[in-house]
Amino acid sequence: MSAIDTGMPAGPSLEARAAYLDAVLGSLPGLRLLTDEVDRESYRRDETAYLEPPLPIGVALPTATAEVAELVRLAAIHRVPVVPRGAGTGLSGGAAGVDGGLTIAFTRMDRILEIDRADLVVVTQPGVVNADLKKAVAAEGLFYAPDPASYEMCTIGGNLGTNAGGLCCVKYGVTRDSVIGLEIVTADGSVVRLGGRTVKDVAGYGLIPLIVGSQGTLAIVTEATLRLRPAPPPKATLIAFFAALDDAGRAVAAVIDAGVEPCTLELMDRTTIRAVDDIHHLGLDLDAAAMLLIESDLPGAAAGIALETAARACDGAGATTTIIATDPQEADWLRQGRRMAFNAMEQLGVARMEDVGVPRGRVPDLLREIERIASDQGLTIATFGHVGDGNLHPNIILDRDEPDGAAKLKRATDALCIAAIELGGTVTAEHGIGISRRDFLERQRGAGAVALMRAIKDALDPLGILNPGKVLSER
Amino acid sequence: MSAIDTGMPAGPSLEARAAYLDAVLGSLPGLRLLTDEVDRESYRRDETAYLEPPLPIGVALPTATAEVAELVRLAAIHRVPVVPRGAGTGLSGGAAGVDGGLTIAFTRMDRILEIDRADLVVVTQPGVVNADLKKAVAAEGLFYAPDPASYEMCTIGGNLGTNAGGLCCVKYGVTRDSVIGLEIVTADGSVVRLGGRTVKDVAGYGLIPLIVGSQGTLAIVTEATLRLRPAPPPKATLIAFFAALDDAGRAVAAVIDAGVEPCTLELMDRTTIRAVDDIHHLGLDLDAAAMLLIESDLPGAAAGIALETAARACDGAGATTTIIATDPQEADWLRQGRRMAFNAMEQLGVARMEDVGVPRGRVPDLLREIERIASDQGLTIATFGHVGDGNLHPNIILDRDEPDGAAKLKRATDALCIAAIELGGTVTAEHGIGISRRDFLERQRGAGAVALMRAIKDALDPLGILNPGKVLSER
Repeated sequence: MSAIDTGMPAGPSLEARAAYLDAVLGSLPGLRLLTDEVDRESYRRDETAYLEPPLPIGVALPTATAEVAELVRLAAIHRVPVVPRGAGTGLSGGAAGVDGGLTIAFTRMDRILEIDRADLVVVTQPGVVNADLKKAVAAEGLFYAPDPASYEMCTIGGNLGTNAGGLCCVKYGVTRDSVIGLEIVTADGSVVRLGGRTVKDVAGYGLIPLIVGSQGTLAIVTEATLRLRPAPPPKATLIAFFAALDDAGRAVAAVIDAGVEPCTLELMDRTTIRAVDDIHHLGLDLDAAAMLLIESDLPGAAAGIALETAARACDGAGATTTIIATDPQEADWLRQGRRMAFNAMEQLGVARMEDVGVPRGRVPDLLREIERIASDQGLTIATFGHVGDGNLHPNIILDRDEPDGAAKLKRATDALCIAAIELGGTVTAEHGIGISRRDFLERQRGAGAVALMRAIKDALDPLGILNPGKVLSER
Repeated sequence: MSAIDTGMPAGPSLEARAAYLDAVLGSLPGLRLLTDEVDRESYRRDETAYLEPPLPIGVALPTATAEVAELVRLAAIHRVPVVPRGAGTGLSGGAAGVDGGLTIAFTRMDRILEIDRADLVVVTQPGVVNADLKKAVAAEGLFYAPDPASYEMCTIGGNLGTNAGGLCCVKYGVTRDSVIGLEIVTADGSVVRLGGRTVKDVAGYGLIPLIVGSQGTLAIVTEATLRLRPAPPPKATLIAFFAALDDAGRAVAAVIDAGVEPCTLELMDRTTIRAVDDIHHLGLDLDAAAMLLIESDLPGAAAGIALETAARACDGAGATTTIIATDPQEADWLRQGRRMAFNAMEQLGVARMEDVGVPRGRVPDLLREIERIASDQGLTIATFGHVGDGNLHPNIILDRDEPDGAAKLKRATDALCIAAIELGGTVTAEHGIGISRRDFLERQRGAGAVALMRAIKDALDPLGILNPGKVLSER
């Protein structure tokens, strides 16, 4: 398949690369360091379709913070870039290779260090898979909220890098909202601790929310302290079908307006519904223009009451059918469609998932814009996403053997990003700027805001060795 | 009363001060600018007892962002510091005068610009009083959560500066969690917009959470876009009395552990209970060592169920009495004690309110430390606060004519700060470092974290004119 030019900077000289790898081997003889080309190849990309980044010069798999610090200290001496990487499930190219750079994969720093019930925190290394962390705290009757769709594969470190979202954000917020402590390695190889276990703390600047979401360009996270909650009761689940996208948009507004506080508020459009049902035969309404999935985890009878209120709001907005699950098994069945959505997309061809967000009130406008762009460009775009937060994932579907794929994709993603910006929204609500949306950062944020970001990048990484060319383009 | 040395830097030369004020008058003839000494005197301090900061050289009361930008642009030219100020209710010296500096008071930038029901946001100038904003959005059936105790006087701009907390944080988070857009004036006098109305947005670095809580040392906020929620139902209210502080501490843990999600979880100790009851005759249990106030705003029957669960948890921890309000009037009566607490303290003498926080599980240890410090130093310390978040306000009470007040106070506040740090906590959970806790910043955060803060300060305010000597000490 063709590739989009990543516009990445040229890396260090061949001599500097070799000298760095020699220094690493000399200083950290116990480190697992992959230099074979076949091995490195599997760390070149993340899950962003149509991105062809450079091959890393090596892949380090550290097991301790001290190793990471030494890797960065030596990188500063040799002016070699370093790229932190979790499971490689990112959708913006954040963990993709950079020219002449070492990729630091955190998959072996995968220990949960402590679960503290009294403080309601978990202390973890960054390589732990989100689902494993969820499972471990659930065994103690506790709950870690952030749940990106890839939670069964993605790591906490990657979640911190992108400030990942997920289905639960509408009630529980994004990854950043759960982080109260970090251990980081800074650009000179120092180890610095930020925050701790105190949930309210205004001593000095908010460094943690600055580092979270910076995709490894300001510091590298080597440990995190995350907030937990007592496990909520099982979710009550409702799905509603609509004959028109606009009706679904109005239903979302009506549900929120009615004071329902759902823990899930998701939308799937017709293309998604059909793709999912084609594979999984769930008996979804194939004539519907849209489906909403609404869940509540309020305690006791409150959940049922919330869903009845939500169902009335959907009916008022013109729902053709509403179904409230009567038992956990039926709830699971209703939920399955949404869970399978991206998987189903990938059966249709090469799916590039976009990640636009708009103010809640502009969701119907965004849905119309997506339809217009698909029709203008003669493309299939299947949309689902976290509509309660105004965050939708339009998936551009291309044939696997489409010769003009990269160009078609670029036209479509550009149009989607421009539409989101013109609606007062964002080109990325939860996946990150990375490489793939970098050209739109200034258009969305403005030159003044980007200048502040550059000033901070230069202050914290004066040599520009931390994941260069990601988030901010090179000058 | 005696004063604690503020250790503030010497300001610009007399010539520079005069030249700056002349330039301001020349460039902004319509600006309200106070230069009379009596007028300036009332802008010297905030509400931090025993702090004697310098007198501002002038006080500007702008009505528009362009005026603020021009004040800062000229300040950069003349190297004159500027201090942003809301209502002056701060408790850390954040808005206190700096030597040779201009104070910019935002009391005339007090317009609510827009309430948008569909997007669930309010756009406001910084000089709006928190309670006025709450009232305005409540009239639309909406809810702005952050509620510092001073909400009837303090401004949104001050809340943003300190990342203010309040009673609702245990459920709804701190001020930072409600901010999705800012307009700021940067250190060179540029106007920059950050964020917008989209609740999820990861395009670039988290500048908003960095600016919020920086007490005007990184930029000056001239407009904010804040998240709203549909108004929750009226609160259900419970109070519980305990014969021992430790029992109250265990009750807090038990309430959270039982999965109750209170919207208020407050503690008052014996000294506070008695001081409040002395004045307001609420019929509180004067023999109790502690009282908890627990509220729920869950919908329908869920609130009552939550409070019954909470009452059982309190009983299990040894509560001597638990009272659940049976109607809104009784709830208001139960709530009054907590609301009157600081007011009651001020009747006892000069009250310096501290603001320590610890991990939730360390609350009983912190309560014991506070008692020990009071006893060691022969002082009255009355404690109340947001115990559900591990945030307590020990109030050091001194006689109005205490000749050795400043020294006694310093010994007590130092001991409290050290105790909080040693328990893994913070010297300030919601009031800010300002001037009054600056000496403890590095001890709590570590040299590495403070070095990162300094790098950011230098990058965003290279001339050091934005509220110098606050948060970070001068070098």
